[in-house]
Amino acid sequence: MTDHIIDPSVVEAENAKLSTDLRNDYDSLGERLDRRGISIDAIKNKVAAFNIAVPSWGVGTGGTRFARFPGKGEPRDIFDKIEDCAVISQLTQATNTVSLHIPWDRADPNRLKQAASRFGLGFDAINSNTFADEKGKLQSYKYGSLSAADAATRQQAIEHNLECIDIGKTIGSKALTVWIGDGSNFPGQVNFARQFEHYLDSMKTVYSALPDDWRIFTEHKMYEPAFYSTVVQDWGTNYLIAKELGDKAYCLVDLGHHAPNVNIEMIVSRLAQFGKLGGFHFNDSKYGDDDLDAGSIDPFRLFLVFNELVDVESRDADFRPAHMLDQSHNVTDPIESLMLSASDVQRSYAQALLVNRNELSAAQDANDVLTAAQHLRVAYRTDVEPILAMSRFEKGGAIDLLATYRASAYRAQVAQIRPEVAVGSSGIV
Amino acid sequence: MTDHIIDPSVVEAENAKLSTDLRNDYDSLGERLDRRGISIDAIKNKVAAFNIAVPSWGVGTGGTRFARFPGKGEPRDIFDKIEDCAVISQLTQATNTVSLHIPWDRADPNRLKQAASRFGLGFDAINSNTFADEKGKLQSYKYGSLSAADAATRQQAIEHNLECIDIGKTIGSKALTVWIGDGSNFPGQVNFARQFEHYLDSMKTVYSALPDDWRIFTEHKMYEPAFYSTVVQDWGTNYLIAKELGDKAYCLVDLGHHAPNVNIEMIVSRLAQFGKLGGFHFNDSKYGDDDLDAGSIDPFRLFLVFNELVDVESRDADFRPAHMLDQSHNVTDPIESLMLSASDVQRSYAQALLVNRNELSAAQDANDVLTAAQHLRVAYRTDVEPILAMSRFEKGGAIDLLATYRASAYRAQVAQIRPEVAVGSSGIV
Amino acid sequence: MTDHIIDPSVVEAENAKLSTDLRNDYDSLGERLDRRGISIDAIKNKVAAFNIAVPSWGVGTGGTRFARFPGKGEPRDIFDKIEDCAVISQLTQATNTVSLHIPWDRADPNRLKQAASRFGLGFDAINSNTFADEKGKLQSYKYGSLSAADAATRQQAIEHNLECIDIGKTIGSKALTVWIGDGSNFPGQVNFARQFEHYLDSMKTVYSALPDDWRIFTEHKMYEPAFYSTVVQDWGTNYLIAKELGDKAYCLVDLGHHAPNVNIEMIVSRLAQFGKLGGFHFNDSKYGDDDLDAGSIDPFRLFLVFNELVDVESRDADFRPAHMLDQSHNVTDPIESLMLSASDVQRSYAQALLVNRNELSAAQDANDVLTAAQHLRVAYRTDVEPILAMSRFEKGGAIDLLATYRASAYRAQVAQIRPEVAVGSSGIV
Amino acid sequence: MTDHIIDPSVVEAENAKLSTDLRNDYDSLGERLDRRGISIDAIKNKVAAFNIAVPSWGVGTGGTRFARFPGKGEPRDIFDKIEDCAVISQLTQATNTVSLHIPWDRADPNRLKQAASRFGLGFDAINSNTFADEKGKLQSYKYGSLSAADAATRQQAIEHNLECIDIGKTIGSKALTVWIGDGSNFPGQVNFARQFEHYLDSMKTVYSALPDDWRIFTEHKMYEPAFYSTVVQDWGTNYLIAKELGDKAYCLVDLGHHAPNVNIEMIVSRLAQFGKLGGFHFNDSKYGDDDLDAGSIDPFRLFLVFNELVDVESRDADFRPAHMLDQSHNVTDPIESLMLSASDVQRSYAQALLVNRNELSAAQDANDVLTAAQHLRVAYRTDVEPILAMSRFEKGGAIDLLATYRASAYRAQVAQIRPEVAVGSSGIV
Repeated sequence: MTDHIIDPSVVEAENAKLSTDLRNDYDSLGERLDRRGISIDAIKNKVAAFNIAVPSWGVGTGGTRFARFPGKGEPRDIFDKIEDCAVISQLTQATNTVSLHIPWDRADPNRLKQAASRFGLGFDAINSNTFADEKGKLQSYKYGSLSAADAATRQQAIEHNLECIDIGKTIGSKALTVWIGDGSNFPGQVNFARQFEHYLDSMKTVYSALPDDWRIFTEHKMYEPAFYSTVVQDWGTNYLIAKELGDKAYCLVDLGHHAPNVNIEMIVSRLAQFGKLGGFHFNDSKYGDDDLDAGSIDPFRLFLVFNELVDVESRDADFRPAHMLDQSHNVTDPIESLMLSASDVQRSYAQALLVNRNELSAAQDANDVLTAAQHLRVAYRTDVEPILAMSRFEKGGAIDLLATYRASAYRAQVAQIRPEVAVGSSGIV
Repeated sequence: MTDHIIDPSVVEAENAKLSTDLRNDYDSLGERLDRRGISIDAIKNKVAAFNIAVPSWGVGTGGTRFARFPGKGEPRDIFDKIEDCAVISQLTQATNTVSLHIPWDRADPNRLKQAASRFGLGFDAINSNTFADEKGKLQSYKYGSLSAADAATRQQAIEHNLECIDIGKTIGSKALTVWIGDGSNFPGQVNFARQFEHYLDSMKTVYSALPDDWRIFTEHKMYEPAFYSTVVQDWGTNYLIAKELGDKAYCLVDLGHHAPNVNIEMIVSRLAQFGKLGGFHFNDSKYGDDDLDAGSIDPFRLFLVFNELVDVESRDADFRPAHMLDQSHNVTDPIESLMLSASDVQRSYAQALLVNRNELSAAQDANDVLTAAQHLRVAYRTDVEPILAMSRFEKGGAIDLLATYRASAYRAQVAQIRPEVAVGSSGIV
Repeated sequence: MTDHIIDPSVVEAENAKLSTDLRNDYDSLGERLDRRGISIDAIKNKVAAFNIAVPSWGVGTGGTRFARFPGKGEPRDIFDKIEDCAVISQLTQATNTVSLHIPWDRADPNRLKQAASRFGLGFDAINSNTFADEKGKLQSYKYGSLSAADAATRQQAIEHNLECIDIGKTIGSKALTVWIGDGSNFPGQVNFARQFEHYLDSMKTVYSALPDDWRIFTEHKMYEPAFYSTVVQDWGTNYLIAKELGDKAYCLVDLGHHAPNVNIEMIVSRLAQFGKLGGFHFNDSKYGDDDLDAGSIDPFRLFLVFNELVDVESRDADFRPAHMLDQSHNVTDPIESLMLSASDVQRSYAQALLVNRNELSAAQDANDVLTAAQHLRVAYRTDVEPILAMSRFEKGGAIDLLATYRASAYRAQVAQIRPEVAVGSSGIV
Repeated sequence: MTDHIIDPSVVEAENAKLSTDLRNDYDSLGERLDRRGISIDAIKNKVAAFNIAVPSWGVGTGGTRFARFPGKGEPRDIFDKIEDCAVISQLTQATNTVSLHIPWDRADPNRLKQAASRFGLGFDAINSNTFADEKGKLQSYKYGSLSAADAATRQQAIEHNLECIDIGKTIGSKALTVWIGDGSNFPGQVNFARQFEHYLDSMKTVYSALPDDWRIFTEHKMYEPAFYSTVVQDWGTNYLIAKELGDKAYCLVDLGHHAPNVNIEMIVSRLAQFGKLGGFHFNDSKYGDDDLDAGSIDPFRLFLVFNELVDVESRDADFRPAHMLDQSHNVTDPIESLMLSASDVQRSYAQALLVNRNELSAAQDANDVLTAAQHLRVAYRTDVEPILAMSRFEKGGAIDLLATYRASAYRAQVAQIRPEVAVGSSGIV
């Protein structure tokens, strides 16, 4: 039996206020979709089966190099974080896995497993970290980790990844996600080719330790923390890596890791077409890797990504990309942001499911450009909130995520237990 | 014997004014380089052996969708263009090949060959054009060419490329360059995967007609003329194409075809490392595919590209990327711009040759970041003009390109023969 | 009495198929909005009163410097264009003004007025053109127009603007829109300060000829056709111009004329706050000045622009920005694109009207970030199509724009009268 | 008498190795410049008179939100920082002022003054900080500071700026620099107009406390730490602020704070033309506010900025912009980076001084585009290192900055006194 952190009676009371209207809205939307030849229940069932992982580090307040402004009741450790994730899962009914980050979440793996399963949570991909130094380690990653010029540094980074695999085996992860910050800040600082060779060599060693039923995800990013060049700078390099490593290697796409103006949905299509799309780190951004809430800046782009995913799904029944949120919540309650973001990712999925792919194909083949475009536009502007809410409601979640969470007073409760975080006198700059 | 368009006595007279100063400057620079362990003559010899192709279309005044402002003496046809190219070659002694564009330059191939060889010119890669419709062709490329949904349109585009190969065989080209504008202007207009499949299928047919000693170059570009998506949008897709096609397929890098902020020199390194760097279309840009004169906006970037090329060259004696200018001269005399640009490309090459690669490697391996960076900076800020000028001077070219060309009054002379181009009453917009 | 180009019986027949569903959808949406305290009829009335001007040049097929692919039935002159605009106005009931471009639309002004009024159309701002040369003019704008170094060129450009004002007076325009392409392609080509002084001096002369009840709109653009610098490059310079000129001078915002990532809605707010927001050229873009259909790439951005406009409107009853579409239709029937774009601009307006501004302010003042954000999100994801369609229906327009237009066979009819446009053998490049 | 931190005998010994070559190189360059009608000594004298301020925070190792990797001998407090700045000043002879940041550098102002004057250092503009919370303050800047919705928060931010003015008065500053991070992370989070009104109101209070002989500098930045909107987002808003505040208010330009592709030198020109250019924060960047070493990524851009400054200087003898470095040194010894950066800023100034402005103007007025462009290119590619080195040498600085600093073993010496900084177990993310 799964423990509930939020008292179910709170959820029920909030839902009771809204369920009649929800039923009406759902039926009314159902009729309109019916006219378009779509079964609302079929969409709802697909939405109900959709899961997105929550990153453990996402439940703490984020910040920038200039400052961090902690909130009330910040989680003290991974066990507090798991409780916060359980709240998100309980109310959204869409996030039943957690993604860990080592060393931030280092703890007895068996205890981790136990803590999560109490709330019906499992573990998604495990994330290694060689972009920051860890106390007690001999080598520094100041000049790189898996791609460093120094062999001992590379070895330490390799061993850290092996340790992550070991932890993951115990807790039930089935994938290792590797994102590194290696690059350079000056033209001439590194030799691009030699640095990439080092990286590939290191990764081959990590890959060889991967269990048979695991996947390894590599994540590209244009810049930051390196500001002149980055080893895994774009999907082209990411693809080369996945090809060099082998069949268990896949590319991870973070929506905020691209150059300005880049057509991300097309990258999604290319990687899927060539069998190397592993999954996503969802968030939104306007400028760089802003790590804002998914769908908050350019919701149409998120829809277009899902339009690709549903397109692949419609041709390949085995297509199973990993979905994870990866956001930094600097000015909101992280639990609130993560709930709404999980819902907004589902929203894009639901909207993409509304596209009639046969008709779309026909319009495309006939060069009837506007008709094709309208297929997407009409699907996108359908307000599918009743579908999302009904899915949550039927599974025991909250019709209104924000209202229910606030009614629960969870944040105030944990703020009494978890001590206030002191203000740092400065950021990093 | 090679015909000279500019009377050699004009060149001699101009050179005579400058040769003493040039000798002094060359010697003085030689002494300073000597102190750094560099033989100036060795650098000069490499510069002298460097060739860059001139695009036939570059000698006409360019324009934008808003307007074109023709200059005096615009070339009327490919034979006028070849004469203009001969002037550039004579004065720069660095551009002894011309790159043709079909159908713009369609003419009797044997006559083309004759016209060029008279001036000692050969032909570089031949360029196909399926981004505009040609009078008399049945199918339109409005909705794509090699990747069009319509099979007859694809077939016509394939056949055009086969025709280009045939022309190229006669005139002595050894490569086909394929750049297409195919893409889409609306989300939903095309299915990315299906469109790319069409493209690959078409290209495989073209590839199969390629002579054994030829290469095929594909060129990526982020956008324009398509404004939502482009089939060959970046080096990642370009690499996939070259892999799918085979050993004779290589990627062409145009410096203006990338997303904002992208590290182009790193793309150069990646493509070279994986054996798929075919060559370059040199130009410069600040915003998009501005097609400005090479090195006019960001000369350090051009140097960094050559730093990669010299680095590969130092490890691989067989490395032979194709160099071509690809610029649009809207406000200058195209001959003047092309001469200076050829010289500026040589300049970057010469500067890159000054880098002591052993010392650079040592600094990189020692994580002595600033020393490594300074190796590039010191090479870059060396004024190598005396090396370039001496190379030209010794080969019969002009010490001062602009002054000599202007002294020749070539433009005024052809303006008397070539009729004024009427002002278009409007651009395309 | 207004002439109708599309037979009203066609419109009625198409509407008859959809009116029952529309009524149901309108009522159902009305109930849902009622729950949020919003009167659907009030929104509809505001939408019905909304007008957006159509640019005369928008009804012809556009193109790029690479090629133009004309469609069937291209308008031959301004009188054909006015007929196309009349179709758009008849079906959308949202575009009862046309914006002319001189010299493209030069004709007897009285005949122009007559031709338009026959269809109930008026004229919006008149646009001058000094970015292309006109046959028969002595000076060329190759090196600039209103800001040219050459005084005679500046004078010619000034006189052209004065002529535009004269034409405008006759046809009933109340504003002159000045967009120029002046700038430079090379660092050093111009002296920025001197060039801007020239521009301001020229514009002061134009401004002094402006009738008392007119406004003058200046439009900024980052780049293209100039590729290193542009005289009126951003809103900062645009604001300086409007301040220097005087109270009748305002800034025009084209959504595609900004640097990558720029927050356009904030520029809208700043210009409005300081009394200098004149109006808009609506379109959409992903890369540069792509001139794609409004709302087709980033519909949320269009909504956020209208969120600002409605915010100003709610505080300033006299706020009357000029709305115009400015798009280039390269792959669609321009009439179809313009109809849908007018509708999508209305859509954003309608959605912005749904925001409860008092509650939004309260959330903002309480730093309840997510609640504030949700106010916008919920408004934006409301499918207001029934409101737009009902407004059209009640005014005699088409419920389904695309279906009705296609049912009318207008394009096929004019294609029989208007001759096929020959394929240009090349673009400009 | 000024104390020297580096034993002058070390400097002398290093200089002795190089002075003969320097003299030769200087003379040889002098001859070449003479041919161009330029007096090398005149240039050198201007370079010698050039000063650039060093930011106190620049001498500590920087970092990103992901990690910070401290170096050896990190300064413990402002007094250590002043000593590091003294080293830079001694060797470069170009940086005799320090710019403080409050609260980071809070200390007894009289002791600060004494500490600096011992090394012949003065204080440049003082910087306030309301982008991070300070221990012991009642209000948090999480949701803004000078523009916050909350009045008490704004008041606290105002008072902090007043305190900075007070400190500055004692230590001899003549300017206050205000950069804030205020903005928003979500559409809807703030009302742009109201937020800007709050900002202006707060700043007017600060401005009113400014001594008569002070200036106030406001600095714009596109994004970071706010990721959807920023109050002072660009030069347009910055200009509005300076106008609203009054004659003592000026705009500060940081080279890394602009949108991608923006023409920064043109912004410099506009602000200068309208009397509002206050000064610079020099650094370089490829992607965002990367804070890399000045001139390390795009040295031509730095030259073009100085080309504008020298142009203004040539027309306005009273033009005195404030120059400061503002960089983040993540992978280099900050002292080394700051020395080289100061030198690279001087380099751009020296190169810009080589431009013959009369000839440039003539070419511009004649629309001789390439000649105009070549004036800049030839000046830029002149290797002026002998001028910079001679200036340093004659003033007692180091001919070879890096070699001399390393020979002094300063870093190793302070590393014995200053304790190692512990590795943070995580960044902020």
